[in-house]
Amino acid sequence: MNILSIISKKRDKKALTKEEIEYFINEYTKGNITDYQAAALVMAIYINGMNYEETTNLTIAMANSGEKLDLSDISKCIVDKHSSGGVGDKITLILMPIIASLNIPVAKMSGRGLGFTGGTADKLESIPGYKVDLSIDEFKQNVKDIGISLITSSLNLAPADKKIYALRDTIACTDNIPLIASSIMSKKIAAGANKILIDITCGNGAFMKDIKQAKELANTMVKIGNLAGREVRCVITNMDEPVGNAIGNSLEVIEAARALKGEMTEDVKEIILALGVQMIFMAGLTNDRLKAEMMIADSINSRKAYEKFKELIRKQGGDDSYIENTDRFTKAKYVIPVLSENSGHVKEIKTELIGNISVYLGAGRTKKEDSIDFSAGIMMNKKIGSYVEVGQPLAYVYANDEKKIDGAVKNLKESFVIDSKKVSKPKAILGTIA
Amino acid sequence: MNILSIISKKRDKKALTKEEIEYFINEYTKGNITDYQAAALVMAIYINGMNYEETTNLTIAMANSGEKLDLSDISKCIVDKHSSGGVGDKITLILMPIIASLNIPVAKMSGRGLGFTGGTADKLESIPGYKVDLSIDEFKQNVKDIGISLITSSLNLAPADKKIYALRDTIACTDNIPLIASSIMSKKIAAGANKILIDITCGNGAFMKDIKQAKELANTMVKIGNLAGREVRCVITNMDEPVGNAIGNSLEVIEAARALKGEMTEDVKEIILALGVQMIFMAGLTNDRLKAEMMIADSINSRKAYEKFKELIRKQGGDDSYIENTDRFTKAKYVIPVLSENSGHVKEIKTELIGNISVYLGAGRTKKEDSIDFSAGIMMNKKIGSYVEVGQPLAYVYANDEKKIDGAVKNLKESFVIDSKKVSKPKAILGTIA
Repeated sequence: MNILSIISKKRDKKALTKEEIEYFINEYTKGNITDYQAAALVMAIYINGMNYEETTNLTIAMANSGEKLDLSDISKCIVDKHSSGGVGDKITLILMPIIASLNIPVAKMSGRGLGFTGGTADKLESIPGYKVDLSIDEFKQNVKDIGISLITSSLNLAPADKKIYALRDTIACTDNIPLIASSIMSKKIAAGANKILIDITCGNGAFMKDIKQAKELANTMVKIGNLAGREVRCVITNMDEPVGNAIGNSLEVIEAARALKGEMTEDVKEIILALGVQMIFMAGLTNDRLKAEMMIADSINSRKAYEKFKELIRKQGGDDSYIENTDRFTKAKYVIPVLSENSGHVKEIKTELIGNISVYLGAGRTKKEDSIDFSAGIMMNKKIGSYVEVGQPLAYVYANDEKKIDGAVKNLKESFVIDSKKVSKPKAILGTIA
Repeated sequence: MNILSIISKKRDKKALTKEEIEYFINEYTKGNITDYQAAALVMAIYINGMNYEETTNLTIAMANSGEKLDLSDISKCIVDKHSSGGVGDKITLILMPIIASLNIPVAKMSGRGLGFTGGTADKLESIPGYKVDLSIDEFKQNVKDIGISLITSSLNLAPADKKIYALRDTIACTDNIPLIASSIMSKKIAAGANKILIDITCGNGAFMKDIKQAKELANTMVKIGNLAGREVRCVITNMDEPVGNAIGNSLEVIEAARALKGEMTEDVKEIILALGVQMIFMAGLTNDRLKAEMMIADSINSRKAYEKFKELIRKQGGDDSYIENTDRFTKAKYVIPVLSENSGHVKEIKTELIGNISVYLGAGRTKKEDSIDFSAGIMMNKKIGSYVEVGQPLAYVYANDEKKIDGAVKNLKESFVIDSKKVSKPKAILGTIA
């Protein structure tokens, strides 16, 4: 076997065997196949496609390319949740305590933010004292002790995926279903989950802009999950506007804390219910949607989820008094309203732009090495379907750097499209594939 | 403009603009575009193709990527000839002195051999004293003085082509018409020719195995020649067997010297006439095929071409007494007949294998740095259509390394397919595209 024959096959639109895919992944990980050979093969895959079997073999080969987490001593049924990323996406912070409060073990590794999408690990770090970088032993012990742990990964999970992901970015091969599906799934499989719920964000603030593509991605992941012996379900959520109101790290923790006390926006509620129901189904607690929704409602109303969140924070060294009294969070030096220059109905929100404005304000990173300003960000005051009058705030800028206020305000104004006609509120859930 | 948008366009099967192609070539030559980005683009070109305009723009951009030779002070009509390579191809050694003897200036740069194909520069160097590495000034002066010079290039001609050519080899993108056509044409244009004759070798001893592909390549080169303001003609020649009888450097020079005295095999004669006629047409000496053929015949019969070859050799420091008396060439230590084990008609000759055997014997290179054994090689005694009896020689091995004889003889036997049925002699000329 050699890389030239493998490249030739895919170049000629033939299916690769399991052995050929494993050879490529193993040798590329070891550095025996060059980046330019990998680039040629990835481009051939992009153009000529891969069938479900190939995509599954790629997924498993990448999952096996580095360290793997074994969670079988915690439970035979580890349900993981992954979001394909977006703006203001604090769902993990709200949903995971709910799930843990239902005695479904939560052992979740989360990433950091990069570009216009935020990362759960950064949000958690905005809670004073919270340690996201536990050892694997501490991580597992915490799940055993209190049923939940949320950390960043210190493991070398799916290094082949890391290499290919970085390469794809430089050769215009990011938006390809088999490559995206295998990338997400390989990391989740390496992280030890056997049941995986994927929140596929879709819209102008997500990587998937188009519902047709999102559905294709969902179907692919369910299919390769089955072929790889993992139960996979997908919920497609709307990312044509930020999720909830807060964008920025401590701002989103505050919104999550309030949500766990029952105070949440309509879209957050819809998403929590849709994702939560699927996780409850996968965990085998019930097959009845209404019952599952009741469990979630009860977890919130009884404050069990809220208490679980505080317990998690304490267990990982954080100060949960910030959750009890969210006014304790350091507030940004400047909170500036973005006033509407027109009256009318919010028809469209440029969500990726809003994500980028929050990065500009310091809430995110343009490069991996950038540090985060936890209190910076944006609070939405109007969302799609809202009516706004001239002079009313569309949003608020939370800034610590005075020089950035004008640019942020100007760009935020441009992020809102106001129309004279009435606009209906968009659905938060665009589809469920199980 | 940036490389990602260029890659995306070709990935999506759109045509690239002149500016985009120039940007890619210039930035890749400078090292501002990485090999993996170039690999992704080249693969996208391979799969999604390029139209004639794109191929022409690629050709010109590559031709402009380095030094260029200006031959306009020699003549406004420089006719160049290029062969796409094969086994035993000594046509340049015979044809160019004929052309020069007709007062058509010959200023030709030739390559060295690599892999199973030989190179004219190596063959010339087997003549004691012959210098192939003249300066450009000497080269041009020689053409002015005696109407002919044959050298290797010391110029940095079409460096973008060199980079892309090397890259293609490592990513399974060699056999692609637009890439081959632009590679050949860019070097010829950079070398200063305005009229170009391409000998497209086709068969099991050439890069083009298939006549349909060869015709497509010919049409592409004629077309891009026209778009680039160069007259291009192509002759497709048969490479299902070696050209003539000799394979190996001094062996081929000896065959060429004899050919210039009128003693040549049928296939060599056909090729010399077909290529020579086209060059005479392009030089504007006549439009009449018969007259052109007569000119060639007269050049040989009058020994004018032969004398021109000797003059060329003397002018470049070589000892032309070796041409007068070819017995002066050092002969290989061992000359071993390869005896047929069957009686019958030669139906097939594995030409690429024969090329590789001659490399094994020392007549060629597997790596650029390898040195050449000038007297090693193979003499064919039977070609396709010949009748052979058991015990008659099919060919002769010329070796200086005793240890290599057995392997060469064994493999040469396997290079001949003998059949009981009569086989007709193949045509040497498979097509002419002008």
